[in-house]
Amino acid sequence: MEMKLSGWSEPEQAIAKTAFDSAYQRAIGALIAAVRTQVDDLTSADAVWQLHDFLSIQRHVIEGRFDFRSDGILFVFASLVKEGLLQVDELAGLDEEKLTKVKAMSRF
Amino acid sequence: MEMKLSGWSEPEQAIAKTAFDSAYQRAIGALIAAVRTQVDDLTSADAVWQLHDFLSIQRHVIEGRFDFRSDGILFVFASLVKEGLLQVDELAGLDEEKLTKVKAMSRF
Repeated sequence: MEMKLSGWSEPEQAIAKTAFDSAYQRAIGALIAAVRTQVDDLTSADAVWQLHDFLSIQRHVIEGRFDFRSDGILFVFASLVKEGLLQVDELAGLDEEKLTKVKAMSRF
Repeated sequence: MEMKLSGWSEPEQAIAKTAFDSAYQRAIGALIAAVRTQVDDLTSADAVWQLHDFLSIQRHVIEGRFDFRSDGILFVFASLVKEGLLQVDELAGLDEEKLTKVKAMSRF
């Protein structure tokens, strides 16, 4: 993924990129697990189309969410923390203001 | 599925409907088997999106093809025979003209 976070130092961008990639891999891992569960019960046309609908939605959500260039990257980090896809510790090294925002937003 | 084949006798419609439903079940069975094979190797995001693309295409093809009201139902039967989703025997009871057309078209 391309890195373009204006106003972020190089080390901060590297930390953010690593955290982001880790959360992405976890999200994909969770998606694969969910797909496997659905496929265990795949016996009807309806179930196949439900799997398709599920993948359509997940793809839309994940591709929209994991856009590293996003202006709202702190909000994205907060939502990932809230869902357990990212630990705040993985963002250590970002400046205090950014960390405080992430922590605060992750509580909503 | 709704039955509306103008110019077809009631017995012919019943035969066509049964053959059609059988072929549909076989198509779905083949699709489920293909999905299971893909899911066995599901380890990356790319593989998940490939599965999604595959389901999008298959859904479009199957929903378009298995429209029992289609004017081109004989052509659909011929294509199902050609692909091994239907045996000509399952259409026994249709008039000779229809059967001849299906057999002829299934050779292309």
